[in-house]
Amino acid sequence: MTDSRQQAIDYARAHRERFLEGFLDFLRIPSVSTDPAYRADLERCADWVVAELRRLGFSNARAYPTGGSPVVYGEWLEAGPDRPTVLVYAHYDVQPVDPLDEWVTPPFEPSIRDGRLYARGVIDDKCGVWVNLKAFEAMLAAEGRLPVNVKVFFEGEEEIGSPSMEPFIREHHDLLRADFMLVSDGGSRPDDPTIMYAARGIIEAEVTVTGPARDLHSGLYGGVVHNPLHVVGRIIGALHDDSGRVTVPGFYDNVRPLPPEELSMLASYEPDFVEMARKDTGLQAFWAEPLGSFSVRATALPTLDVNGIWGGYQGPGSKTVIPARGGFKVTMRLVADQDPADVQQKFVDYVRSFATPTVSIDVQTGPLGWPVTMMFDGPQVEAIQRAYEATWGKRARLIRAGGSVPIMGMFQRELGMPLTSLGYGTGEGVHAPNEYMLLDYFERGIATAIHFFHNLVA
Amino acid sequence: MTDSRQQAIDYARAHRERFLEGFLDFLRIPSVSTDPAYRADLERCADWVVAELRRLGFSNARAYPTGGSPVVYGEWLEAGPDRPTVLVYAHYDVQPVDPLDEWVTPPFEPSIRDGRLYARGVIDDKCGVWVNLKAFEAMLAAEGRLPVNVKVFFEGEEEIGSPSMEPFIREHHDLLRADFMLVSDGGSRPDDPTIMYAARGIIEAEVTVTGPARDLHSGLYGGVVHNPLHVVGRIIGALHDDSGRVTVPGFYDNVRPLPPEELSMLASYEPDFVEMARKDTGLQAFWAEPLGSFSVRATALPTLDVNGIWGGYQGPGSKTVIPARGGFKVTMRLVADQDPADVQQKFVDYVRSFATPTVSIDVQTGPLGWPVTMMFDGPQVEAIQRAYEATWGKRARLIRAGGSVPIMGMFQRELGMPLTSLGYGTGEGVHAPNEYMLLDYFERGIATAIHFFHNLVA
Repeated sequence: MTDSRQQAIDYARAHRERFLEGFLDFLRIPSVSTDPAYRADLERCADWVVAELRRLGFSNARAYPTGGSPVVYGEWLEAGPDRPTVLVYAHYDVQPVDPLDEWVTPPFEPSIRDGRLYARGVIDDKCGVWVNLKAFEAMLAAEGRLPVNVKVFFEGEEEIGSPSMEPFIREHHDLLRADFMLVSDGGSRPDDPTIMYAARGIIEAEVTVTGPARDLHSGLYGGVVHNPLHVVGRIIGALHDDSGRVTVPGFYDNVRPLPPEELSMLASYEPDFVEMARKDTGLQAFWAEPLGSFSVRATALPTLDVNGIWGGYQGPGSKTVIPARGGFKVTMRLVADQDPADVQQKFVDYVRSFATPTVSIDVQTGPLGWPVTMMFDGPQVEAIQRAYEATWGKRARLIRAGGSVPIMGMFQRELGMPLTSLGYGTGEGVHAPNEYMLLDYFERGIATAIHFFHNLVA
Repeated sequence: MTDSRQQAIDYARAHRERFLEGFLDFLRIPSVSTDPAYRADLERCADWVVAELRRLGFSNARAYPTGGSPVVYGEWLEAGPDRPTVLVYAHYDVQPVDPLDEWVTPPFEPSIRDGRLYARGVIDDKCGVWVNLKAFEAMLAAEGRLPVNVKVFFEGEEEIGSPSMEPFIREHHDLLRADFMLVSDGGSRPDDPTIMYAARGIIEAEVTVTGPARDLHSGLYGGVVHNPLHVVGRIIGALHDDSGRVTVPGFYDNVRPLPPEELSMLASYEPDFVEMARKDTGLQAFWAEPLGSFSVRATALPTLDVNGIWGGYQGPGSKTVIPARGGFKVTMRLVADQDPADVQQKFVDYVRSFATPTVSIDVQTGPLGWPVTMMFDGPQVEAIQRAYEATWGKRARLIRAGGSVPIMGMFQRELGMPLTSLGYGTGEGVHAPNEYMLLDYFERGIATAIHFFHNLVA
């Protein structure tokens, strides 16, 4: 077995340039799920991946239409009934690109500079799709088979909270049945492999404050018309107290305290976490320190962030206007055992309580992303650890993710399936301009995947 | 004399179509002073008005370059030394046009519908320039002369606080010397002529809150990185208390209380003011009632309005970002005897006090616009009253303006010149989409101006 996996790894090395060219083609498709203008690109991207699966010899490969982006599915089930079946998850949609003018090279024209591959989605999460596919291709070419049965499930709505996935999963229980699910979203820092064992849930809301029927002149109505932007500020200013604690009543209900062993594991990461964050953010001081350690606040406590504010005049110079309306977008990260529907309702009720006879307040909410708890140990986790030992030369740290992969919570709740994670993204700039992947980790990721699938049976 | 003024009025009526065509040409020039992209248009607009002055036979007509928009000057001084000299002020620059998609017809393509002339700047304040010029043209054509000596002074920076005007005035004391200044900016509601006797000052500021060195993923840094948008909200939320009172320390220092006779005059306007505001704004309830009556709050107390907020993601859907920065634009209206420099400094100090080790705060300020107190009675005011009696059939109400004409405070402080106001704008939509002037008041404005200039000497 060791020999055959080495043949697959050698194959991947020999075909590195071709594998990379295919990756660049994949990255050129602007599969931005948050903006309806890219809908055709999402469909094109799904079809492109389906064609790749068929080329590899996967069966039943197709793009399933949904209410939103298509689901890409395909299977290779010839390993035999005594071998486990793995459901491999990744997502082919990407974040929007703004602020576009901060990109050194265009986000959908992949560019290699100093050993880095720059492109929107290169880390999050097109490498999750592509590295798995290339590991399969290498194993099939070198060994004629895969060591386990594989179903791939690539979605195109992860960046918008997977609104169509829950009904899709509910209608396709049989199709998706597997022994466990491998989540290939996210990644590790250079020389610091990690395995995610928990992720936060996420909910979103958009608040609009409306005052006068039209924009007004502040010289005519300043002092008598309630300016909606003042109310926007007042609400945002009232979402946290001075310690950084979220003030939405009941927000922290049901937050599960961490067990002492996990707290001490997180404490051991703390100096490293803080140092990394200083370098990454350019900040010396962090926020909300009364609430807990850096690691706990970043991963094990719920949060609320305003992601965008708008209203009135934003051009050069000044404009003496009282705008008719203004608003903001917000996301909240949730942890076990918070119920997203419950927290969402508490947020809506709290924000609406700021309405007065002088302004009205509208709150639009999005899909519910549940927090998730994944495998902490067992043979599948051990298969990942041994793969890292073989390719990175060290075992992985177990980490909580501060981010969210809503599909995981959905799977857990819909299928009762255990989950673990193996992500290939090593680089920076997720959800920001100039996202890049370190090219060295492209080949290494394929080798890690090959080891992992073999380790599941040997 | 009555006969000759009637000849001028008849001339204006006979040439109404030509006068209107010229007005439309003037309105087609997009003289937006707040946006540097329109600089060439401002210069073209100034040259266009200079050419018109020359055509009328004005002497020394020229566009004076300044650090910003040109000043248009011209004079007709042949009335004789026994006649008064009037310095006529108006401004040819206009407000920006956004939100552009709310305009029924394009803002710089004048459109006449239902007796209304729609165009950006038609009220504020191109009619101030044009109606005076057409009154002069009619008098010169019908009578061969003007009843008084006239100097015109049209600026192109009023909408941005006239930053270049103070040095210009200081360098041109002799050029601008006159017995008094007529301010043709603003106007009256239909059948309700008004004379402005006070206007508020204005100062502006732009606040930027900066946190991390780049946009961050809220899943990675939510709960540990201080979100600049939270601080934007916190500052805005702390600019007023629950009663609507501005909380900047010392903001109300030096506010001159109104004398009882003025308070009772304002009280007599109150029901009418409130009713008009309800119709105009679509609001039933107004703001800050504990601070004073509607009229007092709208005109005789200082105010602070946030005119625009920005930061993070504003497109469709959501984006889980902690932006590197966010901010807001603010203007404050001031009354006698507030000192704009003093209030500006108090605002800067207060906003900067929100800086923490986790975010920095930058405040950029603009020019200082002083509050102004104008003629309340005397022969010039009486000349306006008689002009209104002749053309509107009633005398004007004396009003405080809630808005600002910074050039007036500058003249008052630089030249010690008395001021009064005769504005021709009757319509709606100042500083908003679909600005329009009632066409009936175009011709009536020219007649009012003709009467006024004659009334000064007879």
